[in-house]
Amino acid sequence: MSAVDGFRPLNETSLVEYIKATPSLSSILGDSDNFQIKEVGDGNLNFVYIVVSPSGSVVIKQALPYIRCIGEAWPMTKERAYFEAVTLKEHGRLCPAHVPEVYHFDRPMSLIGMRYLKPPHIILRKGLIAGVEYPLLSEHMAEYMSRTLFYTSLLYTTTTEHKKGVAEFCGNVELCRLTEQVVFSDPYKVSEYNRWIPHLDRDAEAVRQDNDLKLEVAQLKSKFCERAQALIHGDLHTGSVMVTQDSTQVIDPEFAFYGPMGFDIGAYLGNLILAFFAQDGHANEENDRKAYKKWILKTLGDTWNLFRQKFIALWDENKDGPGEAYLPHIYNNPDIQKLVQTKYIQDLFHDSLGFGSAKMIRRIVGVAHVEDFESITDVSKQADCERKALNFGKMLMKKRRNFASIDEVITAIQEVDS
Amino acid sequence: MSAVDGFRPLNETSLVEYIKATPSLSSILGDSDNFQIKEVGDGNLNFVYIVVSPSGSVVIKQALPYIRCIGEAWPMTKERAYFEAVTLKEHGRLCPAHVPEVYHFDRPMSLIGMRYLKPPHIILRKGLIAGVEYPLLSEHMAEYMSRTLFYTSLLYTTTTEHKKGVAEFCGNVELCRLTEQVVFSDPYKVSEYNRWIPHLDRDAEAVRQDNDLKLEVAQLKSKFCERAQALIHGDLHTGSVMVTQDSTQVIDPEFAFYGPMGFDIGAYLGNLILAFFAQDGHANEENDRKAYKKWILKTLGDTWNLFRQKFIALWDENKDGPGEAYLPHIYNNPDIQKLVQTKYIQDLFHDSLGFGSAKMIRRIVGVAHVEDFESITDVSKQADCERKALNFGKMLMKKRRNFASIDEVITAIQEVDS
Repeated sequence: MSAVDGFRPLNETSLVEYIKATPSLSSILGDSDNFQIKEVGDGNLNFVYIVVSPSGSVVIKQALPYIRCIGEAWPMTKERAYFEAVTLKEHGRLCPAHVPEVYHFDRPMSLIGMRYLKPPHIILRKGLIAGVEYPLLSEHMAEYMSRTLFYTSLLYTTTTEHKKGVAEFCGNVELCRLTEQVVFSDPYKVSEYNRWIPHLDRDAEAVRQDNDLKLEVAQLKSKFCERAQALIHGDLHTGSVMVTQDSTQVIDPEFAFYGPMGFDIGAYLGNLILAFFAQDGHANEENDRKAYKKWILKTLGDTWNLFRQKFIALWDENKDGPGEAYLPHIYNNPDIQKLVQTKYIQDLFHDSLGFGSAKMIRRIVGVAHVEDFESITDVSKQADCERKALNFGKMLMKKRRNFASIDEVITAIQEVDS
Repeated sequence: MSAVDGFRPLNETSLVEYIKATPSLSSILGDSDNFQIKEVGDGNLNFVYIVVSPSGSVVIKQALPYIRCIGEAWPMTKERAYFEAVTLKEHGRLCPAHVPEVYHFDRPMSLIGMRYLKPPHIILRKGLIAGVEYPLLSEHMAEYMSRTLFYTSLLYTTTTEHKKGVAEFCGNVELCRLTEQVVFSDPYKVSEYNRWIPHLDRDAEAVRQDNDLKLEVAQLKSKFCERAQALIHGDLHTGSVMVTQDSTQVIDPEFAFYGPMGFDIGAYLGNLILAFFAQDGHANEENDRKAYKKWILKTLGDTWNLFRQKFIALWDENKDGPGEAYLPHIYNNPDIQKLVQTKYIQDLFHDSLGFGSAKMIRRIVGVAHVEDFESITDVSKQADCERKALNFGKMLMKKRRNFASIDEVITAIQEVDS
């Protein structure tokens, strides 16, 4: 690759030189004689290096000008690193407890230097597959989502700030187009990128033939493309969260843009539901996973309920703030305040269920699958798990407006599962 | 005013020099010895000059860095001329029959040179007050709205083009903020800018106390601020349309941005309904206006129905086009095509009724009133007309989702009027 535009992909050797020449990194890592470097990226989208020295540690993430997809290269602007860095900084400012700190960003190099999330941090999805409970997870994720979404919406910002943000993140259009394709389009049509396990041939076909489902996904896609509600993470599945028993950290917001809040909330809740439906495939004689399934459902309920409480609390605290959506001289009594909040939350809940179901469906019959199911060793068990999840996702997308609370969703999951 | 940024307001003398130095204008007008110049702007927002010579004619419109409002100056970026010129050109490209041609644009000077719409062209609002029927008006307005809205939406454009347009028009934020304030906020609160005739004191107070109405207007405001559905005119009332018996021309799109289509359609339909409710105030012994009221209602119905037909026809014609909202490989049979179109049109209809009602209400209890009512000489008749219109607008905003067709809206208007 040429360095015409100032970009050159680093390797372990050139990375050391780069760090030495970059005060914001070398000040953390100290003497380069003592660097330990490990490449941990999956090599599909980015180079990711962990650099550790006696003085400190950093993660260096460099975006490549393509993503790799089923063996083929799919060109993808490395400018996504810019939007990732801006979002990490903005979400980090709003919720520092749950977003890793950015030490350094180099736009020509598409390179981010950020906090290394040390062991025992692992990807949440892997913890869910292993059956590990995280007692603070719901609280933390509700905190992250409520703060990042509230403060970047018109409930808190002025129209002037909002349109400035919207305009800037229109630049992340290539990543938005990728989501449009793989979440809202490909699963509903014949596409060379789709795949599914052979047991699900008829199920995949049924998705492509389901007019009611296609009607719903069209409306969700419109909302994704047109509604600039808040600066969303854009890819908030359980693989974008790192956890320990005490810590929850949201990473990888390269798909960030001003979009519908429900897309973030739904991505997270939908992936929790996928984790739930995968549990039977991980059950064995030592662990029937029954208790763990209950914990996942409790986490699902707690996450939404805590989110709602925190979001409303932020709204109440900031009702005389800079936000221009609900002016205090109009929404000037407890009745009307309650009325508009209830409606806002109800719409957001239905959006979240809709986007969540789209994210579930696409992980079963679209291009990118989840380890929750893929790691099930018995393929007929895997098929059972996936089919249950797919059918639940389809029902949820079509009937989402009938659900009045997350408890009703949990009851519906339990009915499907029994 | 200084010329630091290249801006200087022209007068009749300096305008002649400007035209002489500008080939795109002087080529139309010829020898400057023969110019006839008339200033026709209302002086509140812009200078507007008609320049006529034996060779041709042009209108010169120059934006000033403020608008004048109840005697006070309200600063307002003259950059709005840029967005007006871009929109005139884009809408003119899409619908040349109903948008005046732009000959020249000078960004530093905020100056547009465009086609002069010769007599007998008059402002549609004045024609409606005078009781003049325009047999081609519905057809023309349906053509203008369907073409400009369809072709600038994701039904026709790619996500890449769409986001580019959205980003650019985020720059017209000051005009968007003005709409937010005068349409969606001020009428629902105590504001120094609001005014109404004394007979309507209690009615204005009732608007400010109506929690159900405030709940609805909040949702409409959110949609206005967040939903980038198409490049809309942004101020499509009956004062932004010039007409003769044969010609319909849409002018003044300085409020243009990527917003909800229903805001344009609703502005136009809502102002037709205002014109209807004003007719009793213009009735006299010579003309009871009964036939004209019927014509207005027919125009209301025809406009929506023709719009819907034309919009769907454009969709059908372009279903294999560049638009990325409804991919032909997903929406691949007549049933699903019908299903998504019906839903899209239904939502657009309810949006249009909602925005239309907001535009009606704000013209009676907000800052800017309409000549339809203001020109009624008997103030108690004016009050009756305005009250009927206000009450209809309030009902329409709250119940809009119950209307399945424009005929049902017309029936509701007739019931209020009887």
